[in-house]
Amino acid sequence: MTTAAAYAELISKLKRAHVLGTVNGLLGWDEQVNLPPDSADLRAEQLALMAELQHAAASNPCVGELLTLLEGRPGELSTDQQVVLKYSRRDFDRVTKLPPEFVSEKARHSSKAFHAWAECKAKSDFAGYAPFIEQHIKLAKQEAAYLGCTGAPYDYMIDRHDPGMTAAVIERLFGELKQSLVPLMREIVSSPVKARTGIFRGFPVEQQRTFLHSVTERIGFNYRRGRIDVSLHPFCEGSGADIRMTTHFDEHNPLNSLFSAIHETGHGLYEQGTRSDHQGTPLGQAVGMAVHESQSRLWENQVARSRPFWRFFEPRFRETFSAQLGAVSSDELYLAVNAVRPTLIRVDADEVTYNLHIILRFEIEKRLFAGTLAVADLPAAWNALAQELLGLTPASDREGVLQDVHWSGGMFGYFPSYCLGNMMAAQFWYQAQDDLPGLDDDFARGDFSRLLGWLRRNIHEQGRRHDTRELVKVVTGEPLNPKHLLRYLSERYLPLYRG
Amino acid sequence: MTTAAAYAELISKLKRAHVLGTVNGLLGWDEQVNLPPDSADLRAEQLALMAELQHAAASNPCVGELLTLLEGRPGELSTDQQVVLKYSRRDFDRVTKLPPEFVSEKARHSSKAFHAWAECKAKSDFAGYAPFIEQHIKLAKQEAAYLGCTGAPYDYMIDRHDPGMTAAVIERLFGELKQSLVPLMREIVSSPVKARTGIFRGFPVEQQRTFLHSVTERIGFNYRRGRIDVSLHPFCEGSGADIRMTTHFDEHNPLNSLFSAIHETGHGLYEQGTRSDHQGTPLGQAVGMAVHESQSRLWENQVARSRPFWRFFEPRFRETFSAQLGAVSSDELYLAVNAVRPTLIRVDADEVTYNLHIILRFEIEKRLFAGTLAVADLPAAWNALAQELLGLTPASDREGVLQDVHWSGGMFGYFPSYCLGNMMAAQFWYQAQDDLPGLDDDFARGDFSRLLGWLRRNIHEQGRRHDTRELVKVVTGEPLNPKHLLRYLSERYLPLYRG
Repeated sequence: MTTAAAYAELISKLKRAHVLGTVNGLLGWDEQVNLPPDSADLRAEQLALMAELQHAAASNPCVGELLTLLEGRPGELSTDQQVVLKYSRRDFDRVTKLPPEFVSEKARHSSKAFHAWAECKAKSDFAGYAPFIEQHIKLAKQEAAYLGCTGAPYDYMIDRHDPGMTAAVIERLFGELKQSLVPLMREIVSSPVKARTGIFRGFPVEQQRTFLHSVTERIGFNYRRGRIDVSLHPFCEGSGADIRMTTHFDEHNPLNSLFSAIHETGHGLYEQGTRSDHQGTPLGQAVGMAVHESQSRLWENQVARSRPFWRFFEPRFRETFSAQLGAVSSDELYLAVNAVRPTLIRVDADEVTYNLHIILRFEIEKRLFAGTLAVADLPAAWNALAQELLGLTPASDREGVLQDVHWSGGMFGYFPSYCLGNMMAAQFWYQAQDDLPGLDDDFARGDFSRLLGWLRRNIHEQGRRHDTRELVKVVTGEPLNPKHLLRYLSERYLPLYRG
Repeated sequence: MTTAAAYAELISKLKRAHVLGTVNGLLGWDEQVNLPPDSADLRAEQLALMAELQHAAASNPCVGELLTLLEGRPGELSTDQQVVLKYSRRDFDRVTKLPPEFVSEKARHSSKAFHAWAECKAKSDFAGYAPFIEQHIKLAKQEAAYLGCTGAPYDYMIDRHDPGMTAAVIERLFGELKQSLVPLMREIVSSPVKARTGIFRGFPVEQQRTFLHSVTERIGFNYRRGRIDVSLHPFCEGSGADIRMTTHFDEHNPLNSLFSAIHETGHGLYEQGTRSDHQGTPLGQAVGMAVHESQSRLWENQVARSRPFWRFFEPRFRETFSAQLGAVSSDELYLAVNAVRPTLIRVDADEVTYNLHIILRFEIEKRLFAGTLAVADLPAAWNALAQELLGLTPASDREGVLQDVHWSGGMFGYFPSYCLGNMMAAQFWYQAQDDLPGLDDDFARGDFSRLLGWLRRNIHEQGRRHDTRELVKVVTGEPLNPKHLLRYLSERYLPLYRG
């Protein structure tokens, strides 16, 4: 078999597994957006069977043979082909070490756990949900063992989401961040200047939907290859050709749905920016969750909370909601956009305190996996950390340990990516400003194309050419450093809150 | 292997193929309800791959071995198990004679043809759509040949939808029907009594949605195991555990969306009425398309166009739309519900003239497959028949040959089922009235449970225990006969239109 033929065959096999993955993704999207309440058992069966088939396609022995063949001929492969080979091997090894029954069991458990979470959250019933977490931790450790992971299972979980990361590295970065962030937050929170977020009342959902659609479209989301719907917890799903985003609406909190939609749009733009000819291969895939999060955060925070952004959109916002905004001044609106106030709910948190929510979850997960915290003691540990970090104690588990969907899917080691993403977003942001003078003027004109083009060239179109930490270095010339996030937060918030 | 073990293994294999089928069904539903316009290529790939996998599961050689083993031990099987065996053999033979590449090619072509149809219909461009029909006829003939079909390919297509039916049988039944129906229609149409359908203006979509939801729920649709959305052409998809229905809305034609929703509800009730323990086996499957259509038509026409039905729902309809219905009398409303007026569009047709639309399509398909009509001449043939049967000529192909979605999916031989279903609905209806005295009083109280229970016991829960014609005989004591439909139409319409 010629090298070219073997490579082509490998790509064809990868794409087949990828198409199965997109079907799986759609089932997951539909489950959270459309599924009738008593149809969950069938969906669990569908997801389990599809996971098994996807696993079978990804672990096809032919793929292993093709990889071995190509690995023996490195000189005949282009740099890009070597990237494909490297990550395909990594994925293949990961997937072949997991028995199909295990993959199917995990998918089935995740589906059941999701529905248990939704019900238990509504009733604030942690005890009913606890066995599902317990079982997920067991499955995660089992998974790490299947993969011959010699280190800590929690490191394995982190590495799954952000290749190369470990709990120790994160601990150092989070430590540095926390040191300066806590005083910064205290200065802002103790300021006599207070954002009034209660001034937004009675914003009809249909008009909110229309407005956020126009905003996300102008930013650059292509609605001919994607859509936005409503779900309990906003998310973004899909590959370049069909992106499904979700948001949720609150008549008395229009900024929440708007910013969560812009956040998901950032994810969607990353996926829409991957190269269509590389779909299904590592060259058409996101690096990892932290880089993904850097894209959602950059649009949500650095861009959409900036003065130039609101210079363009404020008149349009006022036009859509003239009755509701009549008594709200421009300064009040902009301060509300940049409100800082510790809250119990992560997804409602401002971008300053958000990172403390992540540090809390990182602490909890670390202890859970180390075995120094029992699942039954989780609510108490959560509440103590919330008090320590945020100065708040949840009145019920619904506002505490039950608030996030992630653990119901066994997604441990995922939360840290959010904060790593915040750091990267700030670091990319300053680099983009250096490379593209006059971005503020672009935004004030409602033109986001130069920034999107820069992100596409430097990040989206790169696929997995560079791993998480390499990418930061290649794009910004230095390793990931929390100082950029701290600089950004200071520059944005201190002038506002020093009054 | 014991007989019990072999049977259990067969059921497990059938259920696996069934679950794949439900995933395929969901992809199809999503394609018509949610798919972004430029995501069609990915969906075509997904559908093609899933069709291939479903085919592989259904044609698994183990199934063939299990069937052969069980066929050798008929004495050890219950009557129900023999039904499962009989139809599983039939399905298996059908599926194993089609090469996977052919199945996948047909799925891909159907997806592309659907999008071509939607675009060409919008532009009334038959020439752009013709090659897709041409190719579908080629594929249908190829399919019949793969299956070793010795008769006419059109008979094969009919038998696929309604086991045991042939073009000759349909021709006889349609001939008898047409003979009395044409004079009946002429009498109604020439009556001085005219329904005023233009009196319904400005019915907001959201209120229509709420009203039809409450109607279909009261009839008996379980919205905890199903939902209703919007698509270009209404349809119902899914198995018992998750039914997805669609409708479409017109602010100036609320009865259209209401009756099309009730129609799809009839389909949905059939699927929801199949036995959950038999899902994925012939005992949990509909007999065929004509029986399916008998269920949708019975609820849409015999039930929902009756006086007792409106005795209950008219006050509720008026409450929801008091402003719009203020000037409309009860008699006007009821006459509009039972309007008869020849129209060019099948889905807008009343239940009297509807059957003529079917006879038209049956004629066209018969000639297309016999080779006595070229695809290029289809619009001319269509228009001539429309003039002959309905007294109308389409102004454009959008109102003629391009109006229906069916051929874009290669669904030839399907149209006759609609008219066969109408005949069955009337025949079942009179039997239900004999068996359940006082149904009118039930309806006037908004109680449809006795009728639904009767349909469940006699039809839904029977699965494929009886084939199309047997079922009619078992339930009503006589073979399918168009006289019941003619009786029903005369009893309902002549008193109204004789003034």
